[in-house]
Amino acid sequence: MSQVFATTGNDAEQLEMISQIGAYLRAQNATVACAESCTGGGLAYALTSVAGSSDWFEQSFTTYSNSAKQSLLGVSQYTLEQHGAVSAQCVEEMARGVRERSQAAVGLSTSGIAGPGGGSVQKPVGTVWFAVADATQTRSVSHCFDGDRAQVRQQAIGYALELLHHRLVEINSQAL
Amino acid sequence: MSQVFATTGNDAEQLEMISQIGAYLRAQNATVACAESCTGGGLAYALTSVAGSSDWFEQSFTTYSNSAKQSLLGVSQYTLEQHGAVSAQCVEEMARGVRERSQAAVGLSTSGIAGPGGGSVQKPVGTVWFAVADATQTRSVSHCFDGDRAQVRQQAIGYALELLHHRLVEINSQAL
Repeated sequence: MSQVFATTGNDAEQLEMISQIGAYLRAQNATVACAESCTGGGLAYALTSVAGSSDWFEQSFTTYSNSAKQSLLGVSQYTLEQHGAVSAQCVEEMARGVRERSQAAVGLSTSGIAGPGGGSVQKPVGTVWFAVADATQTRSVSHCFDGDRAQVRQQAIGYALELLHHRLVEINSQAL
Repeated sequence: MSQVFATTGNDAEQLEMISQIGAYLRAQNATVACAESCTGGGLAYALTSVAGSSDWFEQSFTTYSNSAKQSLLGVSQYTLEQHGAVSAQCVEEMARGVRERSQAAVGLSTSGIAGPGGGSVQKPVGTVWFAVADATQTRSVSHCFDGDRAQVRQQAIGYALELLHHRLVEINSQAL
């Protein structure tokens, strides 16, 4: 298995999901923007793997350090001190921040502990928080993934894509 | 071969190169920031594939649209109109822009035509421009890669990593 670009199984399924994400966004003349910490740019890379993604993808941020989360996305000092970067509060602020600053319809964020270091009892290695923000709501969820650094990151990308896809299906059904 | 995260051969070699890039930056207490167009975040994803990358990687931008290149990196309207986004001028402005805005020691940029559409006689599919900007100079180079969209993007990531590595080796030898 590739260590830099590890994949986790059904790649054709992921490509199909990204194509559907693009179709939903294109149909609404909408864009998505990402704010990535532990996935390090891989989520944007996955989204832009399909031809024509420039129709619905304009920009994304990899905000690895806390100061980048603050300066580029507007994450508050209070959130970082009280809850840490790997928290519901942080990913929600990241998703809202990237949505507002990029004027995208949907903001998608990730922050987690890819490992091998950085884990704790409360937040073990593999813990990743995600958020999706759109015009009406911001939702966050966490998941703890098994595997090494590459596997955690790759699974987190897949999970984030599923969250985005799920929310777009929901928005689309409401719009009908 | 994975279509979303295609790899092009010796992955262990790429990981070793990234580790060396990290060691050079860490030794100088320096950071690198990327401004990616056609590589879509994959360069940042590759750099952060090694543990401890947060020591020398704080942030990166995926600027897919022209307006994102302008607003986030300061690429000029003149450059985009006269030379296009896939040009030496554009990647140089991108690399300098991301370096300045992120206060990184080194800025690294990519802009190209991953395909399958968007090619022309002058700039065929597979054409990618790269730039590396540091305190003393900005260098740009282009290369035309064979293969499909995933292969072009993956090779472009490898090429950009080599450029960065080469420049860091050079800077390090001058510093001695």
